[in-house]
Amino acid sequence: MTTIRIVEVGPRDGLQNEKQPIPVATKVELVDRLSATGLRSIEAGAFVSPKWVPQMAGSAEVMAGITRHPGVAYPVLVPNAQGLEAALAAGATEVAVFGAASESFSQKNINCSIAESLERFRPVAERALAAGVRVRGYVSCVLGCPYEGAVDPGKVAEVAAALVAMGCYEVSLGDTIGVGTPAKARAMVRRVVLDVPADRLALHFHDTYGQAVANILACLEEGVTVVDSAVAGLGGCPYAKGASGNVATEDVLYLLHGLGLETGVDLDAVARVGGWISEILGRPTGSKVGRALMAKAGQA
Amino acid sequence: MTTIRIVEVGPRDGLQNEKQPIPVATKVELVDRLSATGLRSIEAGAFVSPKWVPQMAGSAEVMAGITRHPGVAYPVLVPNAQGLEAALAAGATEVAVFGAASESFSQKNINCSIAESLERFRPVAERALAAGVRVRGYVSCVLGCPYEGAVDPGKVAEVAAALVAMGCYEVSLGDTIGVGTPAKARAMVRRVVLDVPADRLALHFHDTYGQAVANILACLEEGVTVVDSAVAGLGGCPYAKGASGNVATEDVLYLLHGLGLETGVDLDAVARVGGWISEILGRPTGSKVGRALMAKAGQA
Repeated sequence: MTTIRIVEVGPRDGLQNEKQPIPVATKVELVDRLSATGLRSIEAGAFVSPKWVPQMAGSAEVMAGITRHPGVAYPVLVPNAQGLEAALAAGATEVAVFGAASESFSQKNINCSIAESLERFRPVAERALAAGVRVRGYVSCVLGCPYEGAVDPGKVAEVAAALVAMGCYEVSLGDTIGVGTPAKARAMVRRVVLDVPADRLALHFHDTYGQAVANILACLEEGVTVVDSAVAGLGGCPYAKGASGNVATEDVLYLLHGLGLETGVDLDAVARVGGWISEILGRPTGSKVGRALMAKAGQA
Repeated sequence: MTTIRIVEVGPRDGLQNEKQPIPVATKVELVDRLSATGLRSIEAGAFVSPKWVPQMAGSAEVMAGITRHPGVAYPVLVPNAQGLEAALAAGATEVAVFGAASESFSQKNINCSIAESLERFRPVAERALAAGVRVRGYVSCVLGCPYEGAVDPGKVAEVAAALVAMGCYEVSLGDTIGVGTPAKARAMVRRVVLDVPADRLALHFHDTYGQAVANILACLEEGVTVVDSAVAGLGGCPYAKGASGNVATEDVLYLLHGLGLETGVDLDAVARVGGWISEILGRPTGSKVGRALMAKAGQA
């Protein structure tokens, strides 16, 4: 039986896009609750400028506050050398760097070209690896860019290969704006695996257009076995206009278990965490599975 | 290029599950607006007892009020001979009968066994066909039953074949409680096509567990070319607990067009109808595509 690893990105990619300020204690409790569900990888924060990403202020306190479970990784995002040093000081044992497959997005998001961003990440990855810290890579805009529209899968492959070459053990392919559909997602993965083996890739889909679960289904058939997702679909409010959250972990687990794939994650436990954090945030869960399971529990 | 036909079930299967009463004039306007989007099949109502389905009261008035577009079918649901006569009197040119693949569901939903329901539909279909009216069939609970759990795909095939044998030009396979996942959905269709050709089948998925788009993707690969869906995901409120709407027409169109499949339907036009009816119902659209397109329009 194939095992799929879920990388839970709710505490970082999810919360980072929530409008309201979230106390460190809540973030710590979220990570701790998630640690008890069987998840083996939980992105816990980002060492970025609080000026740019206010929600990620306090990531050092989060790292200090969580109870680390054996066998669970707690990666944090680092944009540069300064972020890495802060992450190392906070005891991070895994970090993630992030590039884009679109020049315009790279310029607007991190204020440099794709090539410059890769040059910036190279010493960061070197220093991390020398410190015994694992490095994960992200490529954003793999299925479309808000400024350029279509994105060349060859460019995605090029950036992914560069991240692997500098030592990333895995590269997560992000449909940042959630515009992808299954045939395009699959074609993109098929192009990337010419340069990076499928077992070094992860799928990172946002559910803006309701296609994320179908995209994951299509890409699993190309041999990828790692999926990023966020409990309760954090990052997109289910009733806000244009909400664009990560695909919900609960919905991904329902898909995977229904396909007979093993994840080691307890879906009901994740759904309870999703219900809890949604209540804290004062809004309905963004997970359809979460909603259905809560309704069933309410009837029982 | 393959053409997929969408059967828009919002005005019937959608509205029937909305809690608030909806005036006939609104239903008429909904059907008329949908008629202008390129849809060729719009389920307009049901001639069932208003005691059991209060939302479908006034279906005769709806049929009298709508402006029928050439080339567009307006099927209505009929449970029995009495319903058929009312539908014929209202000028229906297409009707739909509905059976279940689960004995318990059949008993609880229509108060008779599956065999009895088929016996009841046979003269209804005969009389309809004699009157020059087309007959569509539904099979419910094809991927699970709220009372029995798992449902035998062989039973689905048996009921579908019986409906075809009595003259249904098409049989719609309904995951009534939305529990299906892609591998199971695909296996079910593979079993059914042993008894009923794929070009006589339609897919009818509810999105309770967020799998409907993925299920459709998997089943299209088995050669089915007709998909039932509801504008704005009507029938399930996006923030209500346990909401269980039809898959949204907008989300299905986004999938199909992304796969390079032709539908003849204008997605933006359907999304505008979805925005309009959601506003009338005083709740957010249940379509992620609808929400994303509205946000884009708001930014423009």
